[in-house]
Amino acid sequence: MAAGEFDLIARYFRPLGLARTDVRLGIGDDAAVLQLESGSDLVVTTDALVHGRHFLDGAAPRSLGHRALAVNLSDLAAMGAQPAWALLALTLPQADEPWLREFAQGLGALARQHDVALVGGNMARGPFNICVQLLGNVPRGAALLRSGARAGDGVYVTGTPGDAAAGRESHAGLRERFEYPSARVTMGIALRGIASACIDVSDGLLADLGKLLQASGAGAELECGSLPLSAGLLAAVGREAGERIALMGGEDYELCFAVPPSRQAAIAALRRPDLCSITQIGTVVRGSGVTVLRGGQTLVVGQQGFDHFPI
Amino acid sequence: MAAGEFDLIARYFRPLGLARTDVRLGIGDDAAVLQLESGSDLVVTTDALVHGRHFLDGAAPRSLGHRALAVNLSDLAAMGAQPAWALLALTLPQADEPWLREFAQGLGALARQHDVALVGGNMARGPFNICVQLLGNVPRGAALLRSGARAGDGVYVTGTPGDAAAGRESHAGLRERFEYPSARVTMGIALRGIASACIDVSDGLLADLGKLLQASGAGAELECGSLPLSAGLLAAVGREAGERIALMGGEDYELCFAVPPSRQAAIAALRRPDLCSITQIGTVVRGSGVTVLRGGQTLVVGQQGFDHFPI
Repeated sequence: MAAGEFDLIARYFRPLGLARTDVRLGIGDDAAVLQLESGSDLVVTTDALVHGRHFLDGAAPRSLGHRALAVNLSDLAAMGAQPAWALLALTLPQADEPWLREFAQGLGALARQHDVALVGGNMARGPFNICVQLLGNVPRGAALLRSGARAGDGVYVTGTPGDAAAGRESHAGLRERFEYPSARVTMGIALRGIASACIDVSDGLLADLGKLLQASGAGAELECGSLPLSAGLLAAVGREAGERIALMGGEDYELCFAVPPSRQAAIAALRRPDLCSITQIGTVVRGSGVTVLRGGQTLVVGQQGFDHFPI
Repeated sequence: MAAGEFDLIARYFRPLGLARTDVRLGIGDDAAVLQLESGSDLVVTTDALVHGRHFLDGAAPRSLGHRALAVNLSDLAAMGAQPAWALLALTLPQADEPWLREFAQGLGALARQHDVALVGGNMARGPFNICVQLLGNVPRGAALLRSGARAGDGVYVTGTPGDAAAGRESHAGLRERFEYPSARVTMGIALRGIASACIDVSDGLLADLGKLLQASGAGAELECGSLPLSAGLLAAVGREAGERIALMGGEDYELCFAVPPSRQAAIAALRRPDLCSITQIGTVVRGSGVTVLRGGQTLVVGQQGFDHFPI
């Protein structure tokens, strides 16, 4: 029999089902049946990669498989959640088996790295769209929200924001950072009980910090000179353009979070070689919005990041 | 400020968040935080409505909102699960507010009917795609699988299959059955402990029963004369064409299930005015595949229903 939807799913996606003991029923029935650890809250997110918006024709399928899962892992990381199970709704113009094989390899490698089982999904023919749903858990009441930042808290960011945006614009050495972003899952879990608020940086550091502050009813002052820029970004565009890209560029999938003064010691203990770097870039203040300073001088900040529907 | 992604979500989709006490955090953070009833298994599915495949330009947005949720409700119904929470990933060519308003009304009305809270989602600009994820629960170990049918079990179907396929082809009186399918959630729950296997009919009765039988390692004999055809379908196309449409047409979102002889009394008790109709249409037999009979004569059956990627 020719390869139809069900054969393709069996061939490329059922192997990503992993043998987690909490998966009572995975791919192949009308729905998946899963067992949530008792004492846990369920944490759920969905995010899509859209043709023309998040990727163009010719995008490497392995990278797309990685990114489709990474953007969702990043959402759970921002909640301090432990990812467990994923579903995939894939809409493709045609059944291109080499494409599917590489896509599944990209998604599968990242899933295995985080012990995530693909437990369900759907394939249909139509305009290119990659929609992933990710489920995980967090001890009851321990999820990191956007809404807990208070004046006086430090504002932190993981890693080196801006690399992905520069990599997307084909600064060759940074391309990997755009195509294969790391989701800060381990750091998100480590921040439970420490961060007062947390968000992942997908639309740009300024834009996403702005959402955290809005949810918290506070403002923040950022010092440009504190932004942790990678050597690659500095070499590609220099300090000033690099700061702008770090503030405005999107798709970093770093975490931006607030920490009360009383927990500075706990933060210091998270500066470990097995975790990604963390850098204080500013302070939460009364008021609203983000004020960007360079050497104490307020900068005028224009575009606030990426919005999918500016009308 | 102009209406961007976040304003549109707030305006049209946050009101669908419903006040369920098990939603600890709904729309507006990086992910939703949910509390699963203890002693329950989590049941999860995702299904997309794809432009050009499941709907065409000019499709009524209210119907699309209804169908996008109904196809997922139907998956949970087939598991005997109680739906609870939904997420929506919506990709639109442009931010068309009248469209969004009606879409949200269609989705919202059906969600309220089933006490489903919309807890998260995502909007992006791009080729039209409507991807819904639905989560629910079932008492531990009570989910209805496809794999439990055994020779001797009766084969049943709910409602009157074929109406939706005829309605899609613009037989006016049946159009409502295509645009606003009922998901058989209450019946699915009632079938816990009674049905030995269950599937929902989305790709056509023959095709979906075939999947149930394959999962169960069995075959079935169906008697055409037993197919429950609606008066509307009979009036539109007559008995013989009606039988063919009931067997081959898709998008019914009825349940097809098997019941052991020992539980016939329990089935009889489900013939109640508050539940949809159920009809025995055949018997599970040893072997594989579906044999369709008319008055004891075997019919040759061609196309086995709908496959999204026949290549």
